[in-house]
Order: sequence, then structure tokens, then C-alpha cells
Amino acid sequence: MINPFFTNKGPFKILEIFNLLSIPFSPNHSNFDINDIKDLNTSDDKCITFFHSKKYKSLANKTKAACCITLDKLKEELPKSCIPLVVKDVLISTAKVTEKFYPNSIYDNFDSSVVEINKKKFEFEVNFGCNVLVGENVKIGKNCFIGHNTIIEKNVIIGDNCSIGSNTIIRNTIIKNNVSILDNCIIGKKGFGFFPNEVSNFKYPHIGMVIVNDFAEIGCASTIDRGSMSNTVIGKNTYLDNQIHIAHNVQIGDNTIIAGQVGIAGSTKIGSNVKIGGQAGISGHLNIGNNVEIGGGSGVIRDLPDNSKVMGYPAKKFRNFLKDSR
Amino acid sequence: MINPFFTNKGPFKILEIFNLLSIPFSPNHSNFDINDIKDLNTSDDKCITFFHSKKYKSLANKTKAACCITLDKLKEELPKSCIPLVVKDVLISTAKVTEKFYPNSIYDNFDSSVVEINKKKFEFEVNFGCNVLVGENVKIGKNCFIGHNTIIEKNVIIGDNCSIGSNTIIRNTIIKNNVSILDNCIIGKKGFGFFPNEVSNFKYPHIGMVIVNDFAEIGCASTIDRGSMSNTVIGKNTYLDNQIHIAHNVQIGDNTIIAGQVGIAGSTKIGSNVKIGGQAGISGHLNIGNNVEIGGGSGVIRDLPDNSKVMGYPAKKFRNFLKDSR
Amino acid sequence: MINPFFTNKGPFKILEIFNLLSIPFSPNHSNFDINDIKDLNTSDDKCITFFHSKKYKSLANKTKAACCITLDKLKEELPKSCIPLVVKDVLISTAKVTEKFYPNSIYDNFDSSVVEINKKKFEFEVNFGCNVLVGENVKIGKNCFIGHNTIIEKNVIIGDNCSIGSNTIIRNTIIKNNVSILDNCIIGKKGFGFFPNEVSNFKYPHIGMVIVNDFAEIGCASTIDRGSMSNTVIGKNTYLDNQIHIAHNVQIGDNTIIAGQVGIAGSTKIGSNVKIGGQAGISGHLNIGNNVEIGGGSGVIRDLPDNSKVMGYPAKKFRNFLKDSR
Repeated sequence: MINPFFTNKGPFKILEIFNLLSIPFSPNHSNFDINDIKDLNTSDDKCITFFHSKKYKSLANKTKAACCITLDKLKEELPKSCIPLVVKDVLISTAKVTEKFYPNSIYDNFDSSVVEINKKKFEFEVNFGCNVLVGENVKIGKNCFIGHNTIIEKNVIIGDNCSIGSNTIIRNTIIKNNVSILDNCIIGKKGFGFFPNEVSNFKYPHIGMVIVNDFAEIGCASTIDRGSMSNTVIGKNTYLDNQIHIAHNVQIGDNTIIAGQVGIAGSTKIGSNVKIGGQAGISGHLNIGNNVEIGGGSGVIRDLPDNSKVMGYPAKKFRNFLKDSR
Repeated sequence: MINPFFTNKGPFKILEIFNLLSIPFSPNHSNFDINDIKDLNTSDDKCITFFHSKKYKSLANKTKAACCITLDKLKEELPKSCIPLVVKDVLISTAKVTEKFYPNSIYDNFDSSVVEINKKKFEFEVNFGCNVLVGENVKIGKNCFIGHNTIIEKNVIIGDNCSIGSNTIIRNTIIKNNVSILDNCIIGKKGFGFFPNEVSNFKYPHIGMVIVNDFAEIGCASTIDRGSMSNTVIGKNTYLDNQIHIAHNVQIGDNTIIAGQVGIAGSTKIGSNVKIGGQAGISGHLNIGNNVEIGGGSGVIRDLPDNSKVMGYPAKKFRNFLKDSR
Repeated sequence: MINPFFTNKGPFKILEIFNLLSIPFSPNHSNFDINDIKDLNTSDDKCITFFHSKKYKSLANKTKAACCITLDKLKEELPKSCIPLVVKDVLISTAKVTEKFYPNSIYDNFDSSVVEINKKKFEFEVNFGCNVLVGENVKIGKNCFIGHNTIIEKNVIIGDNCSIGSNTIIRNTIIKNNVSILDNCIIGKKGFGFFPNEVSNFKYPHIGMVIVNDFAEIGCASTIDRGSMSNTVIGKNTYLDNQIHIAHNVQIGDNTIIAGQVGIAGSTKIGSNVKIGGQAGISGHLNIGNNVEIGGGSGVIRDLPDNSKVMGYPAKKFRNFLKDSR
């Protein structure tokens, strides 16, 4: 799906990027254009990419990228067509280059393009409350409701038959059809990603978006952060209760039910038909299978295969939780 | 207490209800009017009711309802005066019929009747901030404060000497006297109740309301959902801290103190003079007695008698928690 | 740092204070002016102070206060220059006298001094959204962004290069330079402090403020309460994720990182370079050292020395948590 939210400020001459990373530019190189930053896999010969761990060696071996931010010890894995930019910290350098291409992805200042919705024209008639603010290029489908004081920032796309509550803020998000988003939600802000740094942390660019699929419902006062490189996804007919926090890059399957005050940390994948009880917390970078049941208050710190039933902190098999807690 | 929030769209001919549930209408029946849907106990001979579990057999035996949604195996328990409507899933069918009588109880679209408060007349002078929106037929007592951007939806009743914060949304709620509701709260939205269904979950009607009694205080960014059939009740002089979630049908007694980020699941009853520490979670359908103390972070999954002191997940006697955690 | 938020309504004649506390005024005393209420240490000879526990005996011995609210059994510890006001409950009486001097510190009614920001003049140009409300005497530095529907109440001070989100409410707060506060936050409301009382709890005055230091970031939908006597402080370059609750008088050091949905109870001190995982809870009145790591979901109920690594509920050494949870 095309991401309409972050404008690529490129191309940039490769010399500019060497300078940005304080790497001396060899006179052997011609000073050609770099169009974009992408991962090892999707880069073409006009792209810069990054390679920070041996895990990705096989991808690095065949990348088509024009150049690659990497470590001295990894640079030999790159094909000859790919110019290495050797740095000490690949991820921070990658963040700097990403910020150069997508400067709007770092800060979440308010959208100054918004105007009152009654000054906008949409293809279909929209039912809207008082003081609704809408940014430029927002698309809203037919038979939608937008509550009072709600802010829909630029380029957001909302499908048909959606109901958005009051006091809700939506940015960098694509909402499909028949979706309900209740009051006081904040959907699509940057994730909690940065590199610690003494005086001022280095904020990581977030060029992903949030996708909320058909028939999903998001409860009041919930926050769903957009992805950093990939997207944050809420599956079809998945229901979230109030005060839920979904961190960046989380992907949730279809027909999943999540009760109040649950938190899901960054980059975790949740399957379909999953049930999560109130106040449960799920650590980052986990894989939770399909048809999993997680009891209220659980703290999940390990992957869970399909059909697991767990409860506890740390979460264990439901049967063992009951036995141990007698 | 009379519920002024959900307009009964009845009466409906009983034939319409048979059709709605896809039940063939016997030519033996006359096609009379049904005025309302109520429970077994409170139905009169113009009502439809429902009966889904043997637990309620003694109530079913003497219901006065004109007709009753029930299972084939239960229908013989009804009096002869009561026409059985035999279905496969009583609760889903009941939800469908409830929705027919109270269609506004399913979706929480914004209240389109609101206008800026300065266009309203109240019996007493109200102190209000900027951009306050008030729905039709709202009543506000004397010496009240309503903060900026707050939305009071139609038919809400607010007593005397109340202070409502800014950015707060109140609907389907009766607020007594001397109540404080702080900023960014959402009071009276529909609960998280629905029947899972493959393409699109079937949302349960919520025709209850929220009642906040005298001298209660609700902290910032809290959510209190209205009841489904019964009401959600906050007792007199009961204090809730910030970021608390109270689910549908919860009833909390008087002089109870609940610290930040606590969550109480649906239909649980909490007594009076109860103290609940921060981030504690209480499962649904429980009975928590009077004078109970629940430590911070606890997960309560069983009923608690009067005067209990518990802590832990799952919560156990405070003494045992301390001993086990040495 | 001078607190510009709570206006001292004094001086009051000492007779008035005796009357307020229903203490008979001895004809031996002259009826002089009391300027302020302060603690034992900082009171001068125009102040009233309070002394409720033997713990503070050495401070009481040498207080310069003109008079002191205390218990009968403690009054002999005061110097002869200090008139004892003997009461049954020192803290409630202190709260009553504090309320007399600072009546605006009890209730958080909306700030009626606010106007739309475009009617204000600031020393520097401010980038602001729609419907921004600003109270009297607010100061905003250069190069700041203030999002839509945000409310900055009277006397708030915001430094340079700050970004405030949309739908956020800031009161009784001093924000230094380069701070980000995201959407739907409530910063500076009164804490959850009161004395339980049968008909109506006695709310404790909160005359402290919130201080957010340079380069800090506060995530969406977070609440930070102001202090009661002292201040609530967020350190330099400290980052808070979404839906975090920081109670009154909490002090957090520099370069600390706190993940989503964490709650920190009143008067706890957190050091610098601390990392706190998502949904962790920290009890009140604790001392958490520097360089501490607290795992997600932990419940911390004891002080933690520098460099501790803990996890669990109650939190224990990380190594033991892993071992015990195998």
C-alpha cells in the first residue's frame, strides 16, 4: 500500500550523504543522485540501504543498492556494485539519513494545513460535529460520522460507513470501511523510538503509517502509534476496548478481541481470533499465534504458538497458573 | 430512576418480531402490539422478555410477559399466557430485538443536537469555558462549572455545585450534586459488549446509563461506560484517580477510594469504604465486599468478603503476599 | 524557583486562624499578622508551621515560626517564641489553614481568564493551531508550536523550541526549553490527595507546581499531577511514552526512559539514567536510585539502590525473576 504521508525530499547527491555522516568522499566515486533510503531487499540502484548485523548477510550479498551504511567488519559482504559507507553506529547513521530524506517524520508538530470541515468538499456528504478540523488532501468515504473537536490531519484516508468519535486525533493513518474509532483516541503519532544521547536523545524517524482494516473498533482514549519503517496494522473486525496502547510496528490479525488497558510493545505480531484480557501487557518483538487466549493482567514475555491459553506474569499455561495460585 | 436517554421506538406488532427472528408466525396467534423488552421479572403483558438459562426457571414460571425469547428445551417452563419464540441463541436474538426497540443504543455516533452553551438557557446561571457544547434537553443545576471544549450530550442531568473539567465528554449520565469530573474524561459511552461474528461482530445494545452520586470525584482521562441493561453506578463521596477504566454495569459503593490506572471489568460490584491501590485490576462479575483493601497492582479474580485485605496476582491475603514474596 | 501559580491571600490575623481551628484564643497573645504557611525549616517569624511527628523533633526545636499547629504531646518541643495551636489532627488542620492562604489550590475549576491565542501578544512569534486557549500572563518562548484545541492556563511558562500537541491542557507548570509534550496530556492538575471524611472527603491543597526540564518528552494521553507542598519534576532529556501517570510530588532525574502505561505513585523519587518497562507500577514515597532498570509489568514496593536491575511483582533481582519463573 502506498504511503501518502511522508514526502521524500530527495534525490540527494551521494557527496551530501558522505558529508552528513562525516565520511571522506573518495575521488574515485562519481557524485551521483540517491533517490531514497530502503532496506537491503527493496533497494534499487538509486537507493541507499543499511546493513548492521550478520543475520542479514544473505540479503546483503545480493542487494541492488547503490550504497550501504555498514560496519567495517561487514563491508566485504556487499556486492562490488554497492559502495560501503563505513560508520561506527549503523542505526544512528541510518536514522540521520532517513531524517534527511523524510524530515517530517521526526517531530509530530500539529498539522497547520487543517481548516474547519465545512470549508472542505468531499466526494460524499459527511456527517460532522462542531469544530471538526481536516487537513489538506484528506479523503472521507460515504455515510461517515466525525465527532466534535476531532482532528483529521493531512492525507488521511477514511473509507465508507465509518464513525469517528469526538476529541480524536488521526494522522498518518488509512482507515478502511465500517470502522469505529471512539472518543479521545490518538492514532498515528510517532512511536517511542530514539537513541539515548547525553544532552538530547536522537529521535528515530517514523515513516510508517497505521492501517485500520474493515469493521475494526478502537475504544476511547486509546493510542496507536505509526510504524518506523513498516506499518502498524489493526486487522479486520478486531475490537479494542478503552485505554489501550499499541506501539509502533505492531501487527494485529483479524477477529481479535482486546480488553481495556492492554499494552502491546513495539514490533510484536498478534494473530487472528486472539483474546486478550484487561490490563495484559505484551513485550516487544514477539510472535503471538492464532486463536491464543491471554488472561487479564498477564505479562507475556515469550512467543506463543497457535491455540495457547496463558495467564500470569510472566504468562504460563492457564492450567499451571491456576494450580500455582491455589 | 427513569432513564431519559434511550427512546423506545415501539410498539411493534408481534409479527414483526417473529419475522425479525425468522420464526414462522402461527395462525393461532393474533397480531397484537408489543410495547417494550424487559427482563422476566419486570415485564408486563405488553412486553417481550428472554429466558436463556435454567437458573432463572422460577422467574420464568411466573413471568407476566406476552412472549419470551427462549430455547426449545426451556419453553415448557413458561406460563401458558406467554408465547415462546424459540431460537438457537437467546442472547443474540434478544440483542436484535433490543436494537429494534432502542436503535440508538448500539452506535455512539456524536450527538448532532449540541450547540454552543451560550445559546442555551438554564434555570440557574452556569459558569462555562470556551467552546462548550450542550445537547438538547440537558439540565444543569446551580453553581456549576463546565470547562473548555467539554461536550454534554442530550438529556444529561447535572446537579448543583458540580465542576466538570475541560475536554470531557458526558453522555447518557445522571450526575448528582457536588460532583467533580476532571479533564479528558469520557463518561457514558457504550460498553465493550458484543457477540463475536466472522465478518462483523454483533454489537450489543447498551440501554443503561451512568449514575454518579453526590460528592464523587472522577480523575482525569478516566472512562466510565454505561450499562447494558442495568446502570453503571459510582457511589457517594467515592473518589477515582486518573486514567481509571470502569466497564459497563459496574456498581461502586460509597466512600470508596480508587488510585490511578485501576481497571474494573464488567458487572462487578464493589462495596463501600473500599480502598484499591494503583494499577489493580478486578475481573468481571465479581462481588467485592465493604471495607476491603486491595493492594496496588493486584489482580483480583475471585469474590472478596467484607473486610478482606488482599494483594498479589492473583490476589491473596495481604499477609500471605508479604510472606510469599520475601 | 518562584511559584507564580498560587496567590497567597494572607496576611491573616492569628485570631482568625485560632477561630478557624476552633481553638480558644488566650488573652495573653497579641493579635498579630501571619503572612504565610511554611514547613518547620523555612518558616520565619511571620509564618505559621506544622509539626505532627516526633521524626521532625530536631527541626521543631529550632523553628523560627511564630506559631505551630501540633499535638498536645509534641508542643513542648517547640521553642518558647513559637505559639502552639494544639489540635487533634495536625494534617487536616494544616490543610484547612493552607486552604485559607491558598484557596485556589483545592479545586481545579477551568481557567476563566483564557482567550483565543490570536488575541494575545508574545515576545516571540508562536506557531499555533486552531482554537488554542491561553490564560493571562502566560509566557511562551521563541520557535514554539502549540497544537489545536490546546489550553495553556494562566501563568504557565514555556521556554524556547517547545512543541505542545493538540487537545493538551497545561496548568501550574513551568516548561523549560526544547521540550515536547504530545497530544491529550493533562499536566499540572491537583494530585489525588485528601483526608477521607464520611459525607465529603476533605481535599488537600496542592500549592506545588510541575517543572519539565530541557529536552524532556511527554507522550500522548499522559497525566502529570502538580505537587502538594513541593513540586513534581521531570528531569532533563527524560522521555515518557504514552498513557503514563505521574502522581504529585514525584521527582524524576535526567536521561530516564519510561515506557507506556507506567504509573508512579506520590512522592517517589526516581534517579537519572533509569529505564522503566511498560506498565510497571512504582509505589509512593520510594527512592529509586540512578542507572536502575525496572522490567515491564513490575510492581516496585521497596527502595532500589543505584544500578539495580529488577523485575516482577513484587519486583526482585532480574536474575531471580528469570530463575523463579522458569
